Amino acid sequence: MADFVYKQIELTGTSKTSVEDAVQSAIAKASKTVHHIQWFQVMEIRGSVEANKVGYWQVILKVGFKLED
Amino acid sequence: MADFVYKQIELTGTSKTSVEDAVQSAIAKASKTVHHIQWFQVMEIRGSVEANKVGYWQVILKVGFKLED
Amino acid sequence: MADFVYKQIELTGTSKTSVEDAVQSAIAKASKTVHHIQWFQVMEIRGSVEANKVGYWQVILKVGFKLED
Amino acid sequence: MADFVYKQIELTGTSKTSVEDAVQSAIAKASKTVHHIQWFQVMEIRGSVEANKVGYWQVILKVGFKLED
Amino acid sequence: MADFVYKQIELTGTSKTSVEDAVQSAIAKASKTVHHIQWFQVMEIRGSVEANKVGYWQVILKVGFKLED
Amino acid sequence: MADFVYKQIELTGTSKTSVEDAVQSAIAKASKTVHHIQWFQVMEIRGSVEANKVGYWQVILKVGFKLED
Amino acid sequence: MADFVYKQIELTGTSKTSVEDAVQSAIAKASKTVHHIQWFQVMEIRGSVEANKVGYWQVILKVGFKLED
Amino acid sequence: MADFVYKQIELTGTSKTSVEDAVQSAIAKASKTVHHIQWFQVMEIRGSVEANKVGYWQVILKVGFKLED
Amino acid sequence: MADFVYKQIELTGTSKTSVEDAVQSAIAKASKTVHHIQWFQVMEIRGSVEANKVGYWQVILKVGFKLED
Amino acid sequence: MADFVYKQIELTGTSKTSVEDAVQSAIAKASKTVHHIQWFQVMEIRGSVEANKVGYWQVILKVGFKLED
Amino acid sequence: MADFVYKQIELTGTSKTSVEDAVQSAIAKASKTVHHIQWFQVMEIRGSVEANKVGYWQVILKVGFKLED
Amino acid sequence: MADFVYKQIELTGTSKTSVEDAVQSAIAKASKTVHHIQWFQVMEIRGSVEANKVGYWQVILKVGFKLED
Repeated sequence: MADFVYKQIELTGTSKTSVEDAVQSAIAKASKTVHHIQWFQVMEIRGSVEANKVGYWQVILKVGFKLED
Repeated sequence: MADFVYKQIELTGTSKTSVEDAVQSAIAKASKTVHHIQWFQVMEIRGSVEANKVGYWQVILKVGFKLED
Repeated sequence: MADFVYKQIELTGTSKTSVEDAVQSAIAKASKTVHHIQWFQVMEIRGSVEANKVGYWQVILKVGFKLED
Repeated sequence: MADFVYKQIELTGTSKTSVEDAVQSAIAKASKTVHHIQWFQVMEIRGSVEANKVGYWQVILKVGFKLED
Repeated sequence: MADFVYKQIELTGTSKTSVEDAVQSAIAKASKTVHHIQWFQVMEIRGSVEANKVGYWQVILKVGFKLED
Repeated sequence: MADFVYKQIELTGTSKTSVEDAVQSAIAKASKTVHHIQWFQVMEIRGSVEANKVGYWQVILKVGFKLED
Repeated sequence: MADFVYKQIELTGTSKTSVEDAVQSAIAKASKTVHHIQWFQVMEIRGSVEANKVGYWQVILKVGFKLED
Repeated sequence: MADFVYKQIELTGTSKTSVEDAVQSAIAKASKTVHHIQWFQVMEIRGSVEANKVGYWQVILKVGFKLED
Repeated sequence: MADFVYKQIELTGTSKTSVEDAVQSAIAKASKTVHHIQWFQVMEIRGSVEANKVGYWQVILKVGFKLED
Repeated sequence: MADFVYKQIELTGTSKTSVEDAVQSAIAKASKTVHHIQWFQVMEIRGSVEANKVGYWQVILKVGFKLED
Repeated sequence: MADFVYKQIELTGTSKTSVEDAVQSAIAKASKTVHHIQWFQVMEIRGSVEANKVGYWQVILKVGFKLED
Repeated sequence: MADFVYKQIELTGTSKTSVEDAVQSAIAKASKTVHHIQWFQVMEIRGSVEANKVGYWQVILKVGFKLED
């Protein structure tokens, strides 16, 4: 019986409001094609600036999920 | 007269709501056994995913405090 | 016709409320002397602790802007 | 005639016995959907602890393979 | 209306002539299966040596593209 | 009801035989004073050399455990 | 007599043709306002992609120059 | 017979005079509660500035010691 | 009332005698054009060698100061 | 009387069986030309894949030895 | 029959024209004393500036070769 | 006419008194077998502890020198 294997993919979630919302956005999007997402890891937080304010929060994250048998 | 010496310990705070809340949670917990916490430094932001949403924000941080004489 | 050149400067924004607010604070301040800020990148998140709570969120970030001709 | 292009994907192999076995496990799993795996690179070694012993070795690795024409 | 989400994949482009050519090679290859590639980031530059000259430039890069709705 | 908080401590396990054994050794030792160890992360693998062979494997690892209420 | 002090600033040079040209572009631009540039250090190589080709090479570099007395 | 296990703790030593003195200060302080300190590793050198001079050298270091049986 | 914002600049201080002196040299120089320097962080220690001895200690540091209103 | 000086060289040991064996292989080879090897440090673990199994474990390590007078 | 062992040495190649040329220069030089160079890895790209142009490209690279029996 | 090529070797200098002295010690030793040392770069500062004081400062550094024709 084989042990579990997981795959991690790297995404950039964006949001006009917060770091947390950008992460949620990426996970929601990924879950449309990938099942069983179990964890994420933020790799970098950056963003665009428009009119001297943050335009979009851009959060680069890894998302991990179990590979199905 | 000796100069000050500080100690840093590493914690993981968790929260269902935000990065900030996870940090506050860790500091609150640590302050029950450690006095004089003066600063923190976020080392990593990660989390669990449940039903395609963030379950828990897990923030790994260092907390620094002055060693008493 | 020359290609664009950008400059990045490093700032620390502070806020009593959130990581996002500290970033906004730094961008607002920088925009008083620098024009055309286009992006930012968070380098580090740290802060002070007062009375067992976060006193100030201190977010070290790079801010990038186009150098004018 | 174009030069070769490779793709790297990131996996987490797990094993109850050893680091080596966790790597083998991830490669075996990946080879079911990806052909021509040529190399791997260990990114991180971690694991779970159960009853004061290592429960699972979790090895995060990148696996590289040639993209077919 | 959801914010944009991007995915980054990691490739190794190769070329007998230059770093730039290896990057172009990887982007050209990736664009056959992935649409809307918007940016890349070089992660590492290495290569093979044959007869005391560079045989192949091997450039490891990340390629970012918008996930379609 | 507060969220969980974890603490990580850094150890160096040693073994004459293997990386795995050095990790097990550190966890076994730590479990004598710390309860509820849940995970570990290998930070560095090094060792001593004696008579042209590995004398001791020295594995630096972080061990994480839940802080009790 | 004081020892020399240097300042480093961070720029992003861009070019449609090559990494080298992007670096030259940044140095040329910086030299309009800063004198005595003596060295540079490439921090990151990235770029935009347009129509499945590199649009702009974006090279982030530090430029060092002696502070005048 | 079990192999040795070491623990590393992270401290910040401070000194008005030198990096070396800040390290000595941290080791002296730590040795009041921890026995058998065997090595240290400097992680970061920073400091405060007062009246355009270094106020305090702040040296972040790890200190390693053998865990007693 | 806005929160404080700080700026960090990167310098290289040099000295024929010591790391500490090179840092002092850079801070002294910077303080001629920048007010309110509050902290520094050593990024790298390197130097030139002349006649098999250290010629100049070159210490790359960041210097942080509060931006005035 | 001069203090000791050590030199570190970087090797890649290979093995068909394990990480440990690859390290031993590199140390054994190095000891044929270098005396007094005292320690090693693993820098990276990678390997080749053949027929969906690890072909060779390739362990990049630094080996340290005392320079003789 | 022993497995292969490789050695990596670190060089800085220089060139007035390009990154690629600086790498070739270093490999050519190294091959006069070292046989069987098989690969290289670029560690850093920097250079000197003369009269507001790149004077020399300085590419720090590791060069790997098989140790002969 | 070929461009210059440099080689970097990694050493650990030791001293009972200071970081600077440990660096000088390593350079002095290396200069007995290597000519034309031009620069050094400190990679890590660590040391042994004896009787609750620093026993030896151990400074890991790279030393660069021009390869002769």
